[in-house]
Amino acid sequence: MPAHNAFYGQSGGVTPVINASAAGVIQTAQQYPEHINKVYAGQDGIIGALTENLIDTSLESASDIEALKYTPSGAFGSCRYKLKSLEEHRVEYERLIEVFKAHDIRYFFYNGGGDSQDTAYKVSQLSETMNYPITCIGVPKTIDNDLPFTDCSPGFASVAKYVAVSILEASMDVQSMCSTSTKVFVMEVMGRHAGWIAAASGLASDERELGPDVILFPEVEFDQQAFLDKVQTTVDRKGFCSVVVSEGVKKPDGLFLSDSGIKDAFGHAQLGGSAPVVVDIIKQNLDLKCHWAVCDYLQRAARHIGSKTDVEHAYALGKAAVEFAINGENAVMPTIVRTSNSPYKWEIGKAPLADVANVEEMMPNHYISEDGFFITDQCRTYLQPLIGGEDYPPYKNGLPAYVQLKKNKVTKVLGTDFTIK
Amino acid sequence: MPAHNAFYGQSGGVTPVINASAAGVIQTAQQYPEHINKVYAGQDGIIGALTENLIDTSLESASDIEALKYTPSGAFGSCRYKLKSLEEHRVEYERLIEVFKAHDIRYFFYNGGGDSQDTAYKVSQLSETMNYPITCIGVPKTIDNDLPFTDCSPGFASVAKYVAVSILEASMDVQSMCSTSTKVFVMEVMGRHAGWIAAASGLASDERELGPDVILFPEVEFDQQAFLDKVQTTVDRKGFCSVVVSEGVKKPDGLFLSDSGIKDAFGHAQLGGSAPVVVDIIKQNLDLKCHWAVCDYLQRAARHIGSKTDVEHAYALGKAAVEFAINGENAVMPTIVRTSNSPYKWEIGKAPLADVANVEEMMPNHYISEDGFFITDQCRTYLQPLIGGEDYPPYKNGLPAYVQLKKNKVTKVLGTDFTIK
Repeated sequence: MPAHNAFYGQSGGVTPVINASAAGVIQTAQQYPEHINKVYAGQDGIIGALTENLIDTSLESASDIEALKYTPSGAFGSCRYKLKSLEEHRVEYERLIEVFKAHDIRYFFYNGGGDSQDTAYKVSQLSETMNYPITCIGVPKTIDNDLPFTDCSPGFASVAKYVAVSILEASMDVQSMCSTSTKVFVMEVMGRHAGWIAAASGLASDERELGPDVILFPEVEFDQQAFLDKVQTTVDRKGFCSVVVSEGVKKPDGLFLSDSGIKDAFGHAQLGGSAPVVVDIIKQNLDLKCHWAVCDYLQRAARHIGSKTDVEHAYALGKAAVEFAINGENAVMPTIVRTSNSPYKWEIGKAPLADVANVEEMMPNHYISEDGFFITDQCRTYLQPLIGGEDYPPYKNGLPAYVQLKKNKVTKVLGTDFTIK
Repeated sequence: MPAHNAFYGQSGGVTPVINASAAGVIQTAQQYPEHINKVYAGQDGIIGALTENLIDTSLESASDIEALKYTPSGAFGSCRYKLKSLEEHRVEYERLIEVFKAHDIRYFFYNGGGDSQDTAYKVSQLSETMNYPITCIGVPKTIDNDLPFTDCSPGFASVAKYVAVSILEASMDVQSMCSTSTKVFVMEVMGRHAGWIAAASGLASDERELGPDVILFPEVEFDQQAFLDKVQTTVDRKGFCSVVVSEGVKKPDGLFLSDSGIKDAFGHAQLGGSAPVVVDIIKQNLDLKCHWAVCDYLQRAARHIGSKTDVEHAYALGKAAVEFAINGENAVMPTIVRTSNSPYKWEIGKAPLADVANVEEMMPNHYISEDGFFITDQCRTYLQPLIGGEDYPPYKNGLPAYVQLKKNKVTKVLGTDFTIK
């Protein structure tokens, strides 16, 4: 059987370690020249396949591919784009096959979260639905940690480490100044639907109480009075209070906390951020000096403090995806299976894309404490190993020496444009 | 001459490396037992001296004192408190002498910025004004980098490294998603009066253009139309735009950009933050998706990505302060003197506290580019060596193993309370 080319795409919000998965795919594919010829990466994920914008990864140096292991963001560009169903948008599928045929692509590796695994699943069905022989393997990724079947999703653990380190450091800062300055610090983290990231901040809190004293989860309806009571009693007891608030916290009326309803002079809704809203609520009701931070993209780009465990997961999953394909699997996604908490041990598992696609894995209720403001010991046991180990990038002139690939494009052979809708 | 005790205090906003200066003072003092008996640290700086809340650093383990080199925040507590003049508040000075006498304190090391060096200067005058023999040495510190006579202020360089690393990472994130997602990212940094921290973010921008495309300095009056034009042309040219905005940027009317003038339902001013205001301005005028982050305390607590150069400065200045005192100096502050840019070389200098106190060193005009939106090459040459080198803390369970001292108090011998006004 002659070798064919492979397509690799990055999809959805990028992470500190998605490029480590890319390295896993590319370096492993190079070990199977009898099966895989070249790996073509899509410029901006599936959009690159549809528009015939393919990056020839074989033209990158081995050291640059190696450097992907410590480079955040999506090295080939990512996209927020979900394939519609075959019935709705048959022209997209026909276009994919046209591009795949033109570039002899018979392997499809798609690196993303729930929506992206749906795309991967749809592509995997091309063999059956449109009679094009393609081997399709999903590679999991999402900082939201909401993919099913896998113990965790690559990207989440590094964000978890970042938020835990950040709230530890900020809490120590506030502790040392609280006699004459700020009493309450509020840090906003990502997680519109699930509180995994907010929960991870709780890892900083041990008996020294230098992490969040209060965590506001999207899973728990915001109870203003209970929150204010908790803040005041915490300040009374220890002199200061650290709060971590998820961007997705909702009020009893079902609206996001950050949806203030306040309009500016032009009639536009005032920009939110849940942290400033929480601080506003504190200032209106308690006589306490506050400060607030919003992590936003900093948290999901912070490869400088990436989790070694996360990097290892991400690389292993990219590698496993290629090995699955070589072994004749199709329409599956490699997963992380935890076999031991302490010492932490894990191995690679496998889930069918049909089951993974579009399923959100929420945080279990028993991971949130009874009062709704903290994590349980069970949650800590789950989270603790994920932030284990440091994996620093090399530095040059005081800054991380992250790689930017050359991204040489494969010569287009189709004379046709394709417009993304 | 018998040995006497020393007082050490931390003052003003804390930094990632102020504790490294503390380690420099304490470890160096231990080398001169014939001059210095014990180092007593003030609980919350000068307030600890006034209220007789003294921490006996000799009761801390050597390894815990060593750990101060990599621990952020103020290990002994810091304060925002400025001594009034002798004429205005003689009772404070009398109290200081009472406490100093009671605990045989004849050395005074005060670790802080401009206001704190004013306090140090006033204490240094006690020998003359109130006939109490005290040797007083200032130890510089401030993330604002606004102390005169020293090439830089310890704390600034680590914050500089943090903001440069953060905007590099976030810019790479935005770059990889901009075809279908966010086009403009805005990051707010500290600096109410001077743009040093905002300027440092510019170090991330080289020919790869993965740092800020636009920097908004407090030194430059905000020109809304010029700013919007710059953002739009940047997005048109490269697909995305990164903006760093100082918290201290002012509008033509002299008000802070973050002072929106908008009141909430209770009549309270809406909380600002200059980043969300900048994003609001972009959204009102340009059709571009934006995201924003506010670094706040995260930037000045981020010892996990501290600058090695900064740590070395901070320790050396604490060490030099003690050596100055042993050598009979009084009312001076050790400084950093740069002797070479490349390779970067520096040595310890000396400035009289009388000249340092209350003088703000502003950023030179020629460090800001002609259009007001970026730094000049001269500025880069100045800043570059400061972020050089990494100095990672040890980790335990995935988090930095920062030390919390025992802080055993010296037994009070005065039967009197002193109320801080």
